[in-house]
Amino acid sequence: MTSTIKDVSLDQAQGAVDAGRRRALELDLLMNVAVVDVGGHLKAFARMDGAWLGSIDISIKKARTARYFDMQTAELGPTVQPGQPLYHIEFSNGGLITFPGGIPLTLTDDTVIGAVGVSGSTVDNDQAVAEAAAEVIS
Amino acid sequence: MTSTIKDVSLDQAQGAVDAGRRRALELDLLMNVAVVDVGGHLKAFARMDGAWLGSIDISIKKARTARYFDMQTAELGPTVQPGQPLYHIEFSNGGLITFPGGIPLTLTDDTVIGAVGVSGSTVDNDQAVAEAAAEVIS
Amino acid sequence: MTSTIKDVSLDQAQGAVDAGRRRALELDLLMNVAVVDVGGHLKAFARMDGAWLGSIDISIKKARTARYFDMQTAELGPTVQPGQPLYHIEFSNGGLITFPGGIPLTLTDDTVIGAVGVSGSTVDNDQAVAEAAAEVIS
Amino acid sequence: MTSTIKDVSLDQAQGAVDAGRRRALELDLLMNVAVVDVGGHLKAFARMDGAWLGSIDISIKKARTARYFDMQTAELGPTVQPGQPLYHIEFSNGGLITFPGGIPLTLTDDTVIGAVGVSGSTVDNDQAVAEAAAEVIS
Repeated sequence: MTSTIKDVSLDQAQGAVDAGRRRALELDLLMNVAVVDVGGHLKAFARMDGAWLGSIDISIKKARTARYFDMQTAELGPTVQPGQPLYHIEFSNGGLITFPGGIPLTLTDDTVIGAVGVSGSTVDNDQAVAEAAAEVIS
Repeated sequence: MTSTIKDVSLDQAQGAVDAGRRRALELDLLMNVAVVDVGGHLKAFARMDGAWLGSIDISIKKARTARYFDMQTAELGPTVQPGQPLYHIEFSNGGLITFPGGIPLTLTDDTVIGAVGVSGSTVDNDQAVAEAAAEVIS
Repeated sequence: MTSTIKDVSLDQAQGAVDAGRRRALELDLLMNVAVVDVGGHLKAFARMDGAWLGSIDISIKKARTARYFDMQTAELGPTVQPGQPLYHIEFSNGGLITFPGGIPLTLTDDTVIGAVGVSGSTVDNDQAVAEAAAEVIS
Repeated sequence: MTSTIKDVSLDQAQGAVDAGRRRALELDLLMNVAVVDVGGHLKAFARMDGAWLGSIDISIKKARTARYFDMQTAELGPTVQPGQPLYHIEFSNGGLITFPGGIPLTLTDDTVIGAVGVSGSTVDNDQAVAEAAAEVIS
């Protein structure tokens, strides 16, 4: 029997990007914000003027990583260190990012409908902006 | 608001692969049969003993191409020839296949829930086996 | 002496994406719209709900191609045919797209500040939506 | 004189995938199970409904890694750590995986005829399911 799944809409995705952008402005940061859909495919993206060029790919990879494993990229970090269980998992899937800034987008019942990835500053700042973006989804 | 989409299940995908395999046996062919889900990601795959190694990638790319554009790969063929509108579209998306053998998997109301790709013989044979695989979905 | 260059801002890029999205709605089309900056790097992107997954990469590649050569992708098409001067240029730069839908974003004095790429329908429709997006820049 | 090699058949490969799937159900896990042949090429694959998207590539890479070096991926882990002999071997071969979940498929005389790779949970769970899959080969 066919499975039924929920997917982020463009309006939701754009809302998440805008929320991230607003939070970045409040924190005086220049960010790249990417949203992927339930299949891990790019849905919406914005790079603030002056934000790092190298963060385009990282923000998209953070979002994809968060959806590919249905967890925050921050959770993967400890598991991929030398000697830890998932050491060098980043080599898979055309490149993963395993530090903070990628968060699944979830409904109130925890259904994952996509993910957001933010890059452009310290990982703490990236995470803060990603949280602001993810919060607008419900 | 969240979108709701239908996705092929593993049981359906395996059923399609098995149907393709049966049809290949009837036609005395050695085939690779790949099914991707609604997001274009590999769901089920089988390579018959002795089937071409080069057809693994082609069968998967046919399935992905069919889902990426919600049409049979056979339909793309005429549009990608020299002088035609989509000339060299195959360079995109990490490689597309635009000859017969890729077919969207659809419900009776035409909703696309994935796609099947078959490779291992002439394009006519590939197409025939893909049709047999796609027919079991409803 | 240092060069001074003009670059599309995020507000302009988002404005172009929104204009493309509005035109697509008017034409009853489902589109991917991508804007790259003066350096050819992704600046803003939106995929309408239900738009082809295969058009994400194509819209971005159209935009990049248009900026990389400061011309519409439609202009490249005739030059890349078999026997023509730029045959197989699509192999370069990690993949180019040489059919309609990519347009440089220019100021009134013809300075190129970025480019837009649109994919999701026929090349004529893609081009029409890209033109609507490009028109808002001045 | 010509070499003779033994290769996993599709029936064996599908049997291993099914055994892995049954073990995953017993353990209440959602897994990707991939089998490669003696040449390291994909032979059979199944992704259970809801299994991580990021584990498609990892399961295939685990299987290929196990066959490429005729050892369990778990055995490679200690040798690829910083300062160890095979540090960064994961960069080779288009990407290897060196944590548990990949196991060679062997006959009773230890002849390697292919490999299985499992991904979708903790490495311990991945390994347990891969063992169940490998056990059906003899």
